[in-house]
Amino acid sequence: MTYEERYKEYIELIEDGLSTYFPKSPTSQERIFEAMRYSLFGGGKRIRPVILLEFCRVCGGSIEQALPFACALEMIHTYSLIHDDLPCMDNDDLRRGRPTNHKVFGDAIALLAGDALLNGAFEYIFSQGELEPSKVLEAAKIIASSSGAFGMIGGQVMDIENENLSPDAIRIKQTYKLKTGALISAAAEVGCAIAGADAVMRKSASVFAHNIGLAFQLVDDLLDIIGEEETVGKTLRSDNKQHKSTFAHTYGLDMCKHLAEVLTESAKTDIIKNIPDSDFLCWFADFLIKRDY
Amino acid sequence: MTYEERYKEYIELIEDGLSTYFPKSPTSQERIFEAMRYSLFGGGKRIRPVILLEFCRVCGGSIEQALPFACALEMIHTYSLIHDDLPCMDNDDLRRGRPTNHKVFGDAIALLAGDALLNGAFEYIFSQGELEPSKVLEAAKIIASSSGAFGMIGGQVMDIENENLSPDAIRIKQTYKLKTGALISAAAEVGCAIAGADAVMRKSASVFAHNIGLAFQLVDDLLDIIGEEETVGKTLRSDNKQHKSTFAHTYGLDMCKHLAEVLTESAKTDIIKNIPDSDFLCWFADFLIKRDY
Repeated sequence: MTYEERYKEYIELIEDGLSTYFPKSPTSQERIFEAMRYSLFGGGKRIRPVILLEFCRVCGGSIEQALPFACALEMIHTYSLIHDDLPCMDNDDLRRGRPTNHKVFGDAIALLAGDALLNGAFEYIFSQGELEPSKVLEAAKIIASSSGAFGMIGGQVMDIENENLSPDAIRIKQTYKLKTGALISAAAEVGCAIAGADAVMRKSASVFAHNIGLAFQLVDDLLDIIGEEETVGKTLRSDNKQHKSTFAHTYGLDMCKHLAEVLTESAKTDIIKNIPDSDFLCWFADFLIKRDY
Repeated sequence: MTYEERYKEYIELIEDGLSTYFPKSPTSQERIFEAMRYSLFGGGKRIRPVILLEFCRVCGGSIEQALPFACALEMIHTYSLIHDDLPCMDNDDLRRGRPTNHKVFGDAIALLAGDALLNGAFEYIFSQGELEPSKVLEAAKIIASSSGAFGMIGGQVMDIENENLSPDAIRIKQTYKLKTGALISAAAEVGCAIAGADAVMRKSASVFAHNIGLAFQLVDDLLDIIGEEETVGKTLRSDNKQHKSTFAHTYGLDMCKHLAEVLTESAKTDIIKNIPDSDFLCWFADFLIKRDY
């Protein structure tokens, strides 16, 4: 099986998993489920759930047990995009090549669809009974702390505040680490936790996730400056419009690209040493920075 | 100890519990914690956590073990108020006698503060280690399913859709049951679950919560029509402004008041029969419908 085929298999598994959250027949709250589905099945790269499932697999765990947690991370990531796109945040009209959620369903339903996806992530985790309770709690704890005010949301707040500051490289890096890195790190950590991986593997997974998370955000910065909206599929030039200080603005495009490559190489070197059967993860790390400009 | 004194003790316990969620010294994300604290410590009646703690107590459970879940419900309730008040929802300026969260912190931070409170509710539950994992999961599952698209958020969506419909009594009741009743029912159910209450107690707690939840919402409808903003502490006449169909509009004020009293009496009769030491709960049920107009 090629890496592309395995990736495609994972995506199908994740999308089947996500669809089990939704009611099978129409309800009085149909509108909210429609709005949730619109963004959840809008063709994302499924980066976080793929990383979670693959770390669980290479560390000897069960993909079936890991799937609800993988889906939960994707639900959390999707809610953050819906809320980020709202007029009171980035006010973006385009996401994954389609109108953003609030452009289709209105601001109120988009807000509630985001809330319902965040809430649904935890609801989904608790509704599965495959894994022993102590492991469910361990994994749920990693997810909740990485997505909240001490994690991703904290990074979103720093991002907003950076608009009025001239943040130095340390602050920008800290913002990226929380805003983008926290959920990617959680994916690696939860995969390891469910598989019962040892401390060396967990540490290595954490370093890998940290590095590819930062590399991924650097490429996002580049795309915002030099990408084509039609290819990238979302509103671009928004960092400039919002006076956001990114690494690309501070250090220039070449340095940004170079840094993303160095971080990816470093991520790969580390897991090759400490994690068995890590070739798909290495391919995936490369895939993440080789996106179309 | 009088009922008022016990209620005051509960409120202090809950506010101490809530404050342990927050970092002890300033962080880079200080602004979000400030916004979360503003709404969380804005003088709410703490209805849901009080009901949770008291049901746990009368069913023989430990208040200490129940406290994180009580706080989680209050965090969820508070996030729903912050998001409800946003311009894209009810666009209200006044809540608990003070400017609403977005009036003080801006729409973006208010949105994220709401997200962070919902996320924080689960984070808080998982960070405690007093209760065995299977019970934590049982309680967390009740909370997540009552607050999500199948519960409270589903009710909020129905509420928005009711603006364009002429909903009948059945639909209005279903809206109230989800929007207001779901979290109050969860409070009673979680209190019982943590205490390991038997099926008869749980059923009785559930009926009690259902009835007082509906009675509470009926009084809210009344307050919106005949209350004074200064006394009630929030923006009023908004149901009319938004063309919301409430029971009060459909059946008139007298019928609405009568129904709230009947539901409260019915709630009390049931728990007196099936739950030991239920006098505080009966007092609390009366307290909830005797709010100042």
